[in-house]
Amino acid sequence: MTQAAASSPQQIKNTGSLPQGFRAGGSTCGIKASGKSDLAVFVSDYPASAAGVFTQNRVCGAPVTVSRSRVPTSSARAVIINSGNSNAATGLPGIENAKAMTACLADALKCDSEQVFVCSTGVIGVPLPMEKLLKGIPQAAKQLGTADSDLLAAATAMMTTDTFPKLTSADIVIDGKNVRVAGVAKGAAMIAPNMATMLSVIITDAALTPDQCQDILRFGVDRTFNCISVDGHTSTSDTVLLLANGASGTGSASEAHLNTVRDAVQKVCQKLSTDIIRDAEGADHFITIDVAGLATRQFAFRMAKEIADSPLVKTAIVGADPNWGRIVSAAGYAGVDFDTTFLSLRINGVEVYRAGTPVPFSAASLSADLKANRDVHIQLELAGGPCSGSESVRFWTSDLTCEYVRLNSEYTT
Amino acid sequence: MTQAAASSPQQIKNTGSLPQGFRAGGSTCGIKASGKSDLAVFVSDYPASAAGVFTQNRVCGAPVTVSRSRVPTSSARAVIINSGNSNAATGLPGIENAKAMTACLADALKCDSEQVFVCSTGVIGVPLPMEKLLKGIPQAAKQLGTADSDLLAAATAMMTTDTFPKLTSADIVIDGKNVRVAGVAKGAAMIAPNMATMLSVIITDAALTPDQCQDILRFGVDRTFNCISVDGHTSTSDTVLLLANGASGTGSASEAHLNTVRDAVQKVCQKLSTDIIRDAEGADHFITIDVAGLATRQFAFRMAKEIADSPLVKTAIVGADPNWGRIVSAAGYAGVDFDTTFLSLRINGVEVYRAGTPVPFSAASLSADLKANRDVHIQLELAGGPCSGSESVRFWTSDLTCEYVRLNSEYTT
Repeated sequence: MTQAAASSPQQIKNTGSLPQGFRAGGSTCGIKASGKSDLAVFVSDYPASAAGVFTQNRVCGAPVTVSRSRVPTSSARAVIINSGNSNAATGLPGIENAKAMTACLADALKCDSEQVFVCSTGVIGVPLPMEKLLKGIPQAAKQLGTADSDLLAAATAMMTTDTFPKLTSADIVIDGKNVRVAGVAKGAAMIAPNMATMLSVIITDAALTPDQCQDILRFGVDRTFNCISVDGHTSTSDTVLLLANGASGTGSASEAHLNTVRDAVQKVCQKLSTDIIRDAEGADHFITIDVAGLATRQFAFRMAKEIADSPLVKTAIVGADPNWGRIVSAAGYAGVDFDTTFLSLRINGVEVYRAGTPVPFSAASLSADLKANRDVHIQLELAGGPCSGSESVRFWTSDLTCEYVRLNSEYTT
Repeated sequence: MTQAAASSPQQIKNTGSLPQGFRAGGSTCGIKASGKSDLAVFVSDYPASAAGVFTQNRVCGAPVTVSRSRVPTSSARAVIINSGNSNAATGLPGIENAKAMTACLADALKCDSEQVFVCSTGVIGVPLPMEKLLKGIPQAAKQLGTADSDLLAAATAMMTTDTFPKLTSADIVIDGKNVRVAGVAKGAAMIAPNMATMLSVIITDAALTPDQCQDILRFGVDRTFNCISVDGHTSTSDTVLLLANGASGTGSASEAHLNTVRDAVQKVCQKLSTDIIRDAEGADHFITIDVAGLATRQFAFRMAKEIADSPLVKTAIVGADPNWGRIVSAAGYAGVDFDTTFLSLRINGVEVYRAGTPVPFSAASLSADLKANRDVHIQLELAGGPCSGSESVRFWTSDLTCEYVRLNSEYTT
């Protein structure tokens, strides 16, 4: 097995700046045995439009149930996030605890608890330590700021097994006004002894209605957070929230304005979601999969996701094996009725398969390329026949290493 | 990680006997560098009814295309199988080569090539060594017999990375006549440097029409070969064939007769398919998943398959971790709209989750049990609410070990 060295997670240094009218902070209330920070707070000084996208898992955490019931809205004020305990599979008391967290922050901010969202990530099935939280949340509300270091502190307090904080921001200009979109995320990394949670909060001082928030968030998430997979196991707590408070003073949105904001949100989502994959547990390679030439985006998505989730594709990449057979056959069971004689495949730019048959190439040279580089590019294209068209999808995944197995199978009682 | 010792693959000793009017054999034509046997032949002395179930992968091997076009039929005579080369992704010449293999055996048997099926398993994208095959097949046709050792030789010649041959037979009595169903299979184990193929041939001296063959085979395969998964990657060459030659002399089939044969075919298919999982690459555990209480078999199947294919469930089992969170959450993203408050879960008979919340249990004791035993039993049951009902599914899978990653990532050019 190889250890691709280029752009390893440890080299990623992320920064971001808060939009106008937002404050953030990270603090410690004692949930984590490690003593690391465990409470992240995001506050809008003005009522904000907000939308959310949540896990589709039927088994979902209490915070998902509570936050989902509060979007869309035009009066959002804050998000409270704790790490170290997911408040999932905790039954009715879990719902009460999630609501109590929002009420506690609402008290401190002098707003209504319905204006506050809540997210939790960490161990499953264990009641939240409410005494620590109800003491810690008012303290956290006093430690908010507008500096880059405050956003970094918030992103850091969301981390579980992430090896680096995930945050970014993008600046745009609308009608001569400076507008900013900022975002933070925590990764789909393992939380012993249970599975991962992906959480993200996107905030902007653009002026958007709740419906516009929902449309823009859905568009961005469908092309970024929904196009990443480490192991295909959908978490019970996945949540992405978008808050827009209008503090940039741009006023209500024209079509061009909306497109500019949409692009910025997508850019922020893409940076955060690819950072999650770069930080995937035990991964040697960061894999970008482009599937093009399909009649619908859904067809392209299904083919890309089957390639991304195939353990045989992932282990081939670990072994620096340019194994086109595993890739095209994974596309073959995606439930898309295509004709292989129109299918071609490139790995790191080298054509290895065309019109249903292998193309001669130097396997040794391509293997050396896979060994030397952390980034891998898989390009599958359909050029005609049934289900072909002009739609495409870009998807990101990681490989499957022994280290992944080790991290996810260690168990100590 | 544990190495569960009980009933390891090496301890499995399989035997089986041929039904009346069938001959079989295994021989060597030199495809494999190892010099191991690589040609399996099954011949019915009388025209037989036949049906087949084939891979749903859009990228399929040439032998699948050829054999699929020849079922159902009432005049099948033989099956020729080579190991060491899958004749997949070989374009139009691959189709011609597959047909030439059947014509070669048909010549030796003095029948029509349309009466012969062909299967191939091994490396992908490499033209078949036709000179060796066209010389070897007539030789193989001369080395057929009716002894148990002949069936064993045929099962052995199909093997690739299987660690033991997979064969079995079941005897039943219909209208006072002895009837036998026999079967062989090769496993979904890795074929360097490409992916797996699952092949199986079931033969019986029962009297069946081609339609009855198809119904009985589909029923059996849906409950056995379609209920196993090592890594969720559907092969390009998977094939299961059923031949029924009526040599037992039972005459045409009553309903009771058909049910008896159907049960025997299912029993044979189950033995073969579970042996494939017992022989899964690098696996420490053999996992049986029962999902019960769903409104449709399809719902139960989807939930069982998501549990079976989740790398997080598989790695938990490797680590002897009774991780109910990973199991119920895998069921949660199966696309079945159930209510968790009706869901319960047992691991090795111990209830760990009920009505949407964890049940206190001794994790240390259950973990010790998982460490000590190769066989794991996961039982998920829905007791009410949306999508509940009386349908159930049994599914089999293996865990995901470092050894799996190692076997599937080794690459040498």
